Amino acid sequence: MALPTQSTNFPAWYQAVVKGADLAENSLARGCMVVKPYGWAIWEGIQAAMDERIKATGHQNLQFPLFIPYRLLEREAEHVEGFKPEVAVVTHAGGEELEEPLVVRPTSETIIWDTYSRWVQSWRDLPLLYNQWCNVVRWEMHPRLFLRTTEFYWQEGHTAHATADEAMTEQRRMLVEAYQDVCERVLALDVRPGHKTESERFPGADDSMTIEALMRDGKALQAGTSHYLGQNFAKAYNVRFQNREGELEYAYATSWGVSTRLVGGLIMQHGDDRGLRLPPALAPYQVVVVPIFRTDDERVRVLEAAGRLTGDLAALGLRTRLDDREDHRPGFKFNEWELKGVPLRVELGPRDLDAEQAVVVRRDTLEKATKPLGDLAGSFPALLEDIQRTLREQAVAFTDAHTLRPSSYEEMRSFLEASGGFAVGPWCGRADCEAQVKEDTKATIRFLPLDLEDAAGPCVACGDSAIVEATWARAY
Amino acid sequence: MALPTQSTNFPAWYQAVVKGADLAENSLARGCMVVKPYGWAIWEGIQAAMDERIKATGHQNLQFPLFIPYRLLEREAEHVEGFKPEVAVVTHAGGEELEEPLVVRPTSETIIWDTYSRWVQSWRDLPLLYNQWCNVVRWEMHPRLFLRTTEFYWQEGHTAHATADEAMTEQRRMLVEAYQDVCERVLALDVRPGHKTESERFPGADDSMTIEALMRDGKALQAGTSHYLGQNFAKAYNVRFQNREGELEYAYATSWGVSTRLVGGLIMQHGDDRGLRLPPALAPYQVVVVPIFRTDDERVRVLEAAGRLTGDLAALGLRTRLDDREDHRPGFKFNEWELKGVPLRVELGPRDLDAEQAVVVRRDTLEKATKPLGDLAGSFPALLEDIQRTLREQAVAFTDAHTLRPSSYEEMRSFLEASGGFAVGPWCGRADCEAQVKEDTKATIRFLPLDLEDAAGPCVACGDSAIVEATWARAY
Repeated sequence: MALPTQSTNFPAWYQAVVKGADLAENSLARGCMVVKPYGWAIWEGIQAAMDERIKATGHQNLQFPLFIPYRLLEREAEHVEGFKPEVAVVTHAGGEELEEPLVVRPTSETIIWDTYSRWVQSWRDLPLLYNQWCNVVRWEMHPRLFLRTTEFYWQEGHTAHATADEAMTEQRRMLVEAYQDVCERVLALDVRPGHKTESERFPGADDSMTIEALMRDGKALQAGTSHYLGQNFAKAYNVRFQNREGELEYAYATSWGVSTRLVGGLIMQHGDDRGLRLPPALAPYQVVVVPIFRTDDERVRVLEAAGRLTGDLAALGLRTRLDDREDHRPGFKFNEWELKGVPLRVELGPRDLDAEQAVVVRRDTLEKATKPLGDLAGSFPALLEDIQRTLREQAVAFTDAHTLRPSSYEEMRSFLEASGGFAVGPWCGRADCEAQVKEDTKATIRFLPLDLEDAAGPCVACGDSAIVEATWARAY
Repeated sequence: MALPTQSTNFPAWYQAVVKGADLAENSLARGCMVVKPYGWAIWEGIQAAMDERIKATGHQNLQFPLFIPYRLLEREAEHVEGFKPEVAVVTHAGGEELEEPLVVRPTSETIIWDTYSRWVQSWRDLPLLYNQWCNVVRWEMHPRLFLRTTEFYWQEGHTAHATADEAMTEQRRMLVEAYQDVCERVLALDVRPGHKTESERFPGADDSMTIEALMRDGKALQAGTSHYLGQNFAKAYNVRFQNREGELEYAYATSWGVSTRLVGGLIMQHGDDRGLRLPPALAPYQVVVVPIFRTDDERVRVLEAAGRLTGDLAALGLRTRLDDREDHRPGFKFNEWELKGVPLRVELGPRDLDAEQAVVVRRDTLEKATKPLGDLAGSFPALLEDIQRTLREQAVAFTDAHTLRPSSYEEMRSFLEASGGFAVGPWCGRADCEAQVKEDTKATIRFLPLDLEDAAGPCVACGDSAIVEATWARAY
């Protein structure tokens, strides 16, 4: 299968990779996807890495229900405003019409904070540091596999604290120590952390932080968010505790989530015209061994050697696949594993065996090398580390190369209209200016610096005096 | 908190353990539960063990949508008959009434087999060996935490095969190699495998297998099921493949599942009047260390020694908790950890330190022993293995002691009416006889032998000539 190229038609390339690499497909339930085994294995890898960080930072997993009584959703005004248009509603169950309809959770702040009102009495009960892995549903008019689906899979952390400071520390910690760390070290992505502007905040939040990643078409993807909810939900759901001074006080909240959207980000930041490129730390298979033979004699000889090599690699703890399928030719297999992004491919034929060597192909650079069979397996861990590092360096280099500090609004405008990447410059901080740029260019402010500092000079968009530096881009 | 005893009020005891051990609670969404961190950690342990077996037997995880278009559900006649009264239906979404309502999956055969019709063309595409971990919803009139809830958590395996034999081998394999194995080795349960009678089959199945476990009140719990679905779903959803002879043939199906119900089984087969007893292989904490002190000097000394011991235990790979909470007395902690079923408790006070010893209490037998501190940690892995073995032996002994081969229907009847356990005897195989026993005793046939053999003599229930041996019990 020939893929569309990224440069000619990026959306078609994306769709073709998702399909060709057997990651997911659309289902009969509109906007919902079937995540296929290879796609789900990638998500399980992300889950494992993220779950480890979530637990290592003192959080515990639990599970709240899928359904939220309608009246609960309505208590936090901004929140219901934001989510009401997107919810799916159960009106009938058990053969009868329900007295009160149930909302399929679009996110779980409402039912969780209502429950917390019964769990929290004293400062001794705080903090609550909880997380759940689950499915959520937000009705989606323009679904795109992984990026924007009606049902998606995620984790949502919901914590309650005795002080605003502690909650804000938590909010930032999860963004940096969990999300950014996993994205950089495991997914080998380049993500940029920062604050959202007020207009881009989570409904009901006092502050939203984000990690933003630049895709290869120059558009940004919001890859994870962490919110400081202040006392908004505590007030709406009456979560009060007796503080150390004996006074009743509302608790302070955070919530934070990453979703299957990250799989989309992985595809679009690392992928090339041949398909996926998976970082070794995450790849379901790190090495694939493809035997090459024509005659039966060759078959026996090559499969034996390939089996031995596969065993050696597995013994080193590497996730290895011996592709001994007989109904496909080697060339077909090479293409397929490139499309699926397996970091290393070993090609092994009878002439290689005669010369006691094998051909090794790196997916990241497409470099092809002939290597002695002797300690081939032993050389792979270092090689995989190098691939992991290279993918990350390429991602950083791409983002840097597609970041512009425009010297005029005209320059910024044409850069953003062409989806050139991140435009960085001083901003006045006004919502109407932000809206004007969006109208002119379809670009939004993706983030403000994580450590907010005053900016000097005129706003790059409107010329008024700036208060902070902002990063704009068109986005998914 | 004093628990009700098992013998005076088993249901009250169960509820008190679920609440007291902080496993789960009812939520505002009727019939749905909030699974609390300790309960969820137990479920995560079950998931990990089961997932390992599922993958080791060649299956891959994937994910199908939560929603099933209503018309899809209606295609397999028996299946829709069985599930239609229990489904929750989404009629509105995105602010509008849907043209076609969506069912929240009660199980996923329908959408999966409809999808398989597009995945399967040739015998080369078979078998499909897939599994998903997810939530499902069956509207429940009489919910009980873990045992029977509107939303519950499970895995559902769905496989497609080219021959009936292969599918039947798969059905049995998952029951025995995954479910029975994990229940026995990890959960230390006694489960008895067998076939369901026709009247107890899964809607749409040609044969249902089950593992049944006897609870401490003499009632049985269906702890997992594995179904051979024949070609029923292939015909309903048109899943045909070209066989090796070039002819079009319908594929053969299995499905199999275990759920959060297993947590209920664990509580009710191992628990005693003091609460949960968790098998070490599954326990979130295998060892808890409780320091005892009064003065500040003692506090420093004891906490230091307790910390050292905890470190030694963790270094051995044991899941250990140092309970250094200062707002609870040791006696309170002893009760709490007994209620939570932690396999081993270490009590360490200043006098123990003087004597270079510690008090070790086993949760399974409640034996209390004073042991030298010297190689205390080193002795624990063997001790935990012994606890694991003992819990399993106790479970088997209990089931054996509560299994009766009645010599008359009168004896069987009074045994079953008193929830005495499993009654085993020859059965005529007739559904009306089965129904009569149910009417007389509220007991059902829990299973027929896994290897069906002819039985001789008269049916223990009706006196007609028997064809098979059956096992009756009252059940959850």
